[in-house]
Order: sequence, then C-alpha cells, then structure tokens
Amino acid sequence: MMRFKEKVHEIIFEADTREGKLFDVCLLVVITLSLVLVMLESVEEINAIYDRIFNVLEWVFTFVFLLEYFLRIYSVKKPTGYIFSFFGIVDLLSILPVFLGLFIVGGHSFMIIRSLRLLRVFRVFKLVRFLGEARQISQALSASKAKIIVFLGFILTVVVILGTVMYIVETPESGFTSIPISIYWAIVTLTTVGYGDIAPQSVLGQVIASVVMILGYAVIAVPTGIVTNEIIQFKPKKSLSTQVCPSCCEEGHDSDAVFCKYCSEKL
Amino acid sequence: MMRFKEKVHEIIFEADTREGKLFDVCLLVVITLSLVLVMLESVEEINAIYDRIFNVLEWVFTFVFLLEYFLRIYSVKKPTGYIFSFFGIVDLLSILPVFLGLFIVGGHSFMIIRSLRLLRVFRVFKLVRFLGEARQISQALSASKAKIIVFLGFILTVVVILGTVMYIVETPESGFTSIPISIYWAIVTLTTVGYGDIAPQSVLGQVIASVVMILGYAVIAVPTGIVTNEIIQFKPKKSLSTQVCPSCCEEGHDSDAVFCKYCSEKL
Amino acid sequence: MMRFKEKVHEIIFEADTREGKLFDVCLLVVITLSLVLVMLESVEEINAIYDRIFNVLEWVFTFVFLLEYFLRIYSVKKPTGYIFSFFGIVDLLSILPVFLGLFIVGGHSFMIIRSLRLLRVFRVFKLVRFLGEARQISQALSASKAKIIVFLGFILTVVVILGTVMYIVETPESGFTSIPISIYWAIVTLTTVGYGDIAPQSVLGQVIASVVMILGYAVIAVPTGIVTNEIIQFKPKKSLSTQVCPSCCEEGHDSDAVFCKYCSEKL
Amino acid sequence: MMRFKEKVHEIIFEADTREGKLFDVCLLVVITLSLVLVMLESVEEINAIYDRIFNVLEWVFTFVFLLEYFLRIYSVKKPTGYIFSFFGIVDLLSILPVFLGLFIVGGHSFMIIRSLRLLRVFRVFKLVRFLGEARQISQALSASKAKIIVFLGFILTVVVILGTVMYIVETPESGFTSIPISIYWAIVTLTTVGYGDIAPQSVLGQVIASVVMILGYAVIAVPTGIVTNEIIQFKPKKSLSTQVCPSCCEEGHDSDAVFCKYCSEKL
Repeated sequence: MMRFKEKVHEIIFEADTREGKLFDVCLLVVITLSLVLVMLESVEEINAIYDRIFNVLEWVFTFVFLLEYFLRIYSVKKPTGYIFSFFGIVDLLSILPVFLGLFIVGGHSFMIIRSLRLLRVFRVFKLVRFLGEARQISQALSASKAKIIVFLGFILTVVVILGTVMYIVETPESGFTSIPISIYWAIVTLTTVGYGDIAPQSVLGQVIASVVMILGYAVIAVPTGIVTNEIIQFKPKKSLSTQVCPSCCEEGHDSDAVFCKYCSEKL
Repeated sequence: MMRFKEKVHEIIFEADTREGKLFDVCLLVVITLSLVLVMLESVEEINAIYDRIFNVLEWVFTFVFLLEYFLRIYSVKKPTGYIFSFFGIVDLLSILPVFLGLFIVGGHSFMIIRSLRLLRVFRVFKLVRFLGEARQISQALSASKAKIIVFLGFILTVVVILGTVMYIVETPESGFTSIPISIYWAIVTLTTVGYGDIAPQSVLGQVIASVVMILGYAVIAVPTGIVTNEIIQFKPKKSLSTQVCPSCCEEGHDSDAVFCKYCSEKL
Repeated sequence: MMRFKEKVHEIIFEADTREGKLFDVCLLVVITLSLVLVMLESVEEINAIYDRIFNVLEWVFTFVFLLEYFLRIYSVKKPTGYIFSFFGIVDLLSILPVFLGLFIVGGHSFMIIRSLRLLRVFRVFKLVRFLGEARQISQALSASKAKIIVFLGFILTVVVILGTVMYIVETPESGFTSIPISIYWAIVTLTTVGYGDIAPQSVLGQVIASVVMILGYAVIAVPTGIVTNEIIQFKPKKSLSTQVCPSCCEEGHDSDAVFCKYCSEKL
Repeated sequence: MMRFKEKVHEIIFEADTREGKLFDVCLLVVITLSLVLVMLESVEEINAIYDRIFNVLEWVFTFVFLLEYFLRIYSVKKPTGYIFSFFGIVDLLSILPVFLGLFIVGGHSFMIIRSLRLLRVFRVFKLVRFLGEARQISQALSASKAKIIVFLGFILTVVVILGTVMYIVETPESGFTSIPISIYWAIVTLTTVGYGDIAPQSVLGQVIASVVMILGYAVIAVPTGIVTNEIIQFKPKKSLSTQVCPSCCEEGHDSDAVFCKYCSEKL
C-alpha cells in the first residue's frame, strides 16, 4: 500500500520518471483544452450552437480535476501542507467555479483561474534555468519595491490633483463629468494609453493635457532606471532544482539539496 | 502652560509617542474621508441625493482642519516657520476652498489640494527607508535636471515645427484647424498617447505622422538613459530620521542629529 | 566554362569588384521598385487606372528574379547549399506569389516577402560595422532570451486573468462581448497602445483598467532593464568580413579568415 | 569705421557685454512674439477679427529681422562664413516665408522656422553647462548611430511585412483599404500610439495585432538599452565657452581657447 502511495506521488508530483512526465504533459494539455473551452463558451455565436457539448465537456474536465485533486491529497505525506500551498489553493479554486455556475449566471467564467495551473509547465519541462531567471527578475523587483511604492504614491497624488484641475477646467460635454472620471482620464493619459473616449476640447484643457503627456513621457524613465539598476547590480548565486518536497510541497530547493530546507523531509 | 504646549507639539508634530501616532492616523483617515467626499460631490447622480449631508460634512471637516491648524500655530515655537513651510502652506490651502465655494460655483473642488497632506503618511508610519528612497530618486532627477531641460527644449522645438508642417499638409477636415491644435496633435503623437480625435487623413500626412511616431519611439530612450545613468551612479550616504524640528518645521535630519541643522533648535 | 561560372559567382554573390557592386545595386533598385509596385497595386484608385501596366511590370520583375535565381543556382558550387540557405529560400518565395495570384485573388500580395531580400543591402555597401552591430544586438537579445520568455509567460497569464475579470465586470454594450475579445482589450491596454474601440464604462471596470495601465507602465521597466543589462555587459570580440562562402553560402566569416568555417571551402 | 563694425559685431554676435546681452534678450522676445503671431493667425476665429493688425505686425517683424540680417552680414569679417553657417541659413529662411505668403495661400506658415532661432537662447544666458549636456546627449546618440540604423531597418522590414499580412487578413471595412495604409497601421500599433481610426475587427486580425503590440512592447527595450549604454560609458572631457568666432561663426570653442580652432581667427 505504502509503495502504491509512493508510486502515485512520484507520478503526480515529480517529473523525473517517464510516467511522471507523461502525466504532467497530459495534465497541461487538459488544462489548456479546458481554458479554450471557457473562452469559446463566452463567444455568443459559438455557444449558441455547441451549448450542449460544452456543458458535458465542462463536467468531464471538472471530474478529471477533482479526481486528480483527491489523488494529490491521498498521495502526499502531509495533506494540509499541500492543501494550503499556492498550487493546492489554485487546484481547488480551479474546480469550484463549475458549481458556482449552477447558481450564478456567468459564474463559471471564474474557471479561467485554471490558467495559473499552467505555471507548472516550468517544472514539467525541467526549465530549471527559467526558474532561476524568474527568481532573478522577482528579486530585482522586490529589491526596488520601496522605490516603486514611493514612485506609485507620487503618481497617484499627481493623478488626483491633475484630474481635479481638468474637471474644473473642462466642461462635462468633453466627458469630464466628475472628479473620479477625470482622475481616470489622467491615468489613461499619463500612462500614454490614450483611449480617446475622454479628450480635452478647451484650449486650457489641451495645454494641461500636453503637460501631463510630456510629464508621463519623462516620468516613465524613473521605474525603468530603478529596475535596470537592480538587474545590473544583481548577481545570482546558486542553481536550482525542480524537486518538490513530498511532505510540504515547497519548491525552489538547490540542486545539491538532499533534505527539504523547509520541513527536513527527504527529497 | 509651557508643558501643555510641549505636549500638544509632541502629539501633533511627532509620531514617536502612542498619542502622537494615534493623532496622525486619525488625521490621515479624516483627510482621506474628506477627499472621498470631494470626489463624490462631483458625481452628479450621487450629489443630487446626498447634497445636504455632503454640505454639512464639508463644514465639519473644515472646522476640524481649522482647529488643527490653529493648534499647530499655537504649539510650535516659531509660528512663522511653520506657516511658511511647505506643509504649513498646504494646510492653509486645504481650508480656504470651502469659503471660496461660497462665492464661486465649483470652487470647493480645489479642496483636492488636501491630497498633498497625505504625504505626511511617510512620517506617521516611520517610513524612514521610504524617505531615503524618495530622496534618492529626487537627487537622481535633480542631477540630470540640466540634461532633461535640454531634452525638453529639443522636444518642444520639434513639436512646434512638426505641428506646423502638419497644419500645412493636412486639411482642416481631419481636425488640423490651426497651428496650436496641430502642435497639440504632435505632442499627443510623439508621446505615444494617441487619442485619435485628431488623425492625419492624407497620404503625406500619414507619412509624416509615421516619422513622428518612430522618432518618439527612439527618443524615449534618451530620458530613460539619462535617469538610469544617474540612479546607477548614485550612492546614498546616510540614513534619515523622521524628526521634525519643533521650531522651523524642517524635515530630513540625520538619524544621529541632536540639533536642527537649519535653526540649531534641539530636536 | 569554369572561368565563366566563377565570373558569374563573383558578380552575383560578391560585392568586391566593380561589376559585382553594380549588379547588387541594380538588384536592390529592382527589388525596391517591385515592392512599390505591390503597394500601389493594393490602392484601389491607382490600380483601377494602371491595372494593365502593373500586370505587365509584375511579370517582367518576376522574369528578372527567376533568371537571377537560376544564375545563382548555376554559379554556386554546391546548389543545395544555396537553395536551402536563408536567402535561397527567400529568393524562391519572392518568385512564387505571382503564380499564386493566378489562382487566388490577392495572392500576389505575398510578393511583399521580397522586402526580406533588401537585407542584402548590408553586404552590398560593405556595412561590415553594421553587421557587427546587428550581431551585438541579436546576441544581447539571445542572452536575455530565457528572461524574456519568463516575462512573456507572466504577461500572458496576467492578460488572460484580467481579460476574464473585465468580461465578468463589464456589460457587452461596452464592447466586452466575449473572453477572447476582453483578453485582446487587456493586451491593447497593458501595452499602452489604447485604440479606444473597446473601453470600460462601469466604475469598477475603470478602476480595474487603471490598475492594468499603471501595472503596464511599471512592468515595461522589466524587459528594458533586462536588455540594457545585456548590452552593457556585452563586449564584442572580432571584426567581421562581408565574404560569402562560394560553396555553402554562409556569411559572418571573420575578416582574417581564409577558409569557410562551416564547409572548409576557400573564400 | 573699423571700430563701429567691431562694436556692432560685439553687440549682435556676443553676449558678454551689457549691450550685447540686452540686444539678444530683445531679439528672443521679438522672435517669440512673431511665433505667437504666426500661431494666432492660423486660428480662424482670431484671424477673422485681427486680420489687419496681424498683417501689419508681420511686415514689421520681417523688417526688423531683415535689418538684423544685413547688420550681421556687414559686421562679420567673413560674410560667406556667416551666410552658410547653420544660424545664417536659419536667419535667412526666417525672413523669406513672408514674401512666399504673397504668392501662395498659407505660405507664411513656414515662418514657424523662426523657432530654430530660439536655440540662440543657450548662448544668451551663458548656459555653457547646458551646451555641454547637449553635446553629451548628441555624442551618446551619434555613438549609437550604427546600432539605431540597424534597429530602424529591422523595424521597417517588420512593419512592411506585418502591414501586408494584415491587408490580406482584414477586410477593407475595418480600414485596411490598401497595403500602404496597413503599413501605417502597423507603425501606429508597434510604436504603441494606437489612434484607433484603423483597428482589426476579425479574430485572426486581432491575434496578429496582439503579437505586434507585445513585440512593440518588448522591442522598445532595444533602443533604450543602446542609448543607456552609451550614456553610462560616456565621460565628458572639457568645459565649453559660449564664444562665437568673429570670422567663421563656428561655436563650441573650449573655455581656454584664444584662437578659433576652425579658422585661426582671434576670439
């Protein structure tokens, strides 16, 4: 029995053996198919024709995911460790929306949360190097976190004041009907998105808008400078393994690690 | 009496004691509420219903800010120092618009200037590190000030000439009705905002527009390069304290400072 | 006979002699003319008038390219080497669309693939330095390939989830008619393009859109930081020659190379 | 007589003496006024009322500039040096459009070229430091010239091919009426300007557009990286003087220079 449990764990959680890899590739394909299904269901014309098939497929996918979820809980040594891990929660959230769809119209759209399950792709294809790269980017971003928060605070203050100024300067006919909508316009302009649904019509409004645009153009240099600085200064230290701890489900162990650094379980 | 004055100063100006911190947090909440009030007032549908309550709340908030303003003047050792400091002026400007609203329709929208008072948040939560970060960004920007002015001068000249060329090339039907409006278009395009309310229709106009866009695309590299360079070269020196001088209200003292470096008052 | 073949190779493949350079310049002019022809043909008003002339010119250009293609195969020592090289395939693809146009309406638009042939310009004008620069950029990009793939994966996941959230939040009247179209909107907004054909109308939708924009604004710093880092760290090693191997048609030989480093043929 | 000529040169060309500075400031004011005049003239509503005054003022300004131009030619030692210098040509081009306006409607809009004369502002206010900064930026740009040309060549090829693909994929109803207009759309999208006057409607078109946008988003990192690299590597060498050579009108002499480095004339 114990050996069967270990075998299941090996297949579902690891990607080292042939069966484990095959299982993970199949899983990724099924997840992708179920994502395509959710997207197609939302297209009125297609859903009108294949409504029935879509409904059946949806329950089939859900059953597969449910079975997989229980197998994971069964095979892992410390079930609570898996259930409350990032992927454990995502796996559960991927199943629930179907039942939600029984009560709320459009509720099953939340199934799109399954896309987060695709992040397993990194482990499946042994993309250790990519894991390292992702860690490098996120470390660079977290190192510049304080600077970016200061910067966002500054942007928010600027946007609130500029939005209000535009509300005072422009007439409601140009689309500046309230302060919140004017602040929305200021964000659209400062970030150089520029939908054009709200655009200044008065001379003074256009002058202020020009200042906002040139400001946004100059200001984008700041986060770029901050992040570039961190990436240049960052030196990666160790290579990573794709091993997942059989007990606590944590990832990110060094390639020469024998025991899990979070719960001392053997890898 | 002197001790009461000192106590008031401690509570209002500092965030070191429990009472001081509580006061500052309350103040931030009140400021945020009054900002939300100003925004909601500007939304026609909401204001139509709650007009009365909004009016009363507005005067309540103003009274609270007025009281706080006089307490600040009373407790500080050198009142003129506070009155003419950055926050002193912002505090005063936060109160005035309500009275302005009595005479001018929409005048109370200027109350949005209260958002600047939120900048106190840095001191309240002892975000010394953030203060250092903000100083670092602003020093990097001020070090590259000359380069950025040269760059803006260049952008303005380009925009004036390109705007005029488009005014000559395009017909008024496409929206290029005058040179100032064409310059406005050039700014909208060069900064890659692109509202689309004014867009070239003629072949020659679209060719010129394409050149402007690619130019804007290449030119954004310049301010980014300048700021990145400054941030990389910048080495921060000392840690900062959140102390405010009780006499002259200046901030930015080093953490080991005992006396105010601007007016020699004991901190 | 052998000498004639070598002479043809010298003229067509190399740009070292006067005749070789003349041939290449003529070729570039002809390619450019044929590209202009394809573009003009697509403009309804112009095509209506010059339909006939365009048709004749198209066949003339095709004949010239066909002749050149056979001469290239004839003169090269190892024809299969040329046929399956990058330029060999592009040369063939440049001729085929005319015949495709006989069967499919608009099929001859694929002739635009000829624009790839213009890349020969680098060899013609001995732009060795440019070749080196291009190699430097592409090496910097390929060094940061893994990071950019991780980054794109992250962007795609964000865009899928945000698009679905907007589909749930917004009504179909605002243009969010299905999940795929909402994902399209999320890409348009995150990249700060902002067409404005689909724009949020509800308050909650505009709040989410604002978050997407500021996210996109901050997130653009990441690829910039990655590429800048690579370019700064990159040190070019050797200068390049514009020689093309007479046998295998590979380019990129060092300037002091005597034999082809891919097939040992004498250069 | 010689002394009068030298005096005129001192006043008009240099900004070292009190009179010279006064003259230059007056000139800048007059140029700015004449630019405002040209802009106002283009606004239909304003021109309808002040048509007459504008006409008179235009001739007054032109007379002043003509007088100044002849005084410059008279006072300079080598008139041809001045006439064919950058500012000499700009000065002449600033006068001509008024006469052009006599024959061609709207021809006097070219007077906007006067804005280039404002570049003298750097010399007037002794903004030596700014001159150095401008030189630094332009040197960084010129050092990365080859890389930027390669990059632009790549962008142009991408844009031509993508534009044609969209022309084949999309129907004329969406605005993709010809290949040139589709290429224009590709530029608008790749540079993230996004007017929205032309936007894909078909599913395939939107997929391709998404790829273009994400490409543009990633590709903007390249010129930024190139320019940032040059600016970081750049070390300025010497300080500059604002002296203008009395003979050949060249600028950019080092602050310790006694003779003009271009024509050996004493400064």
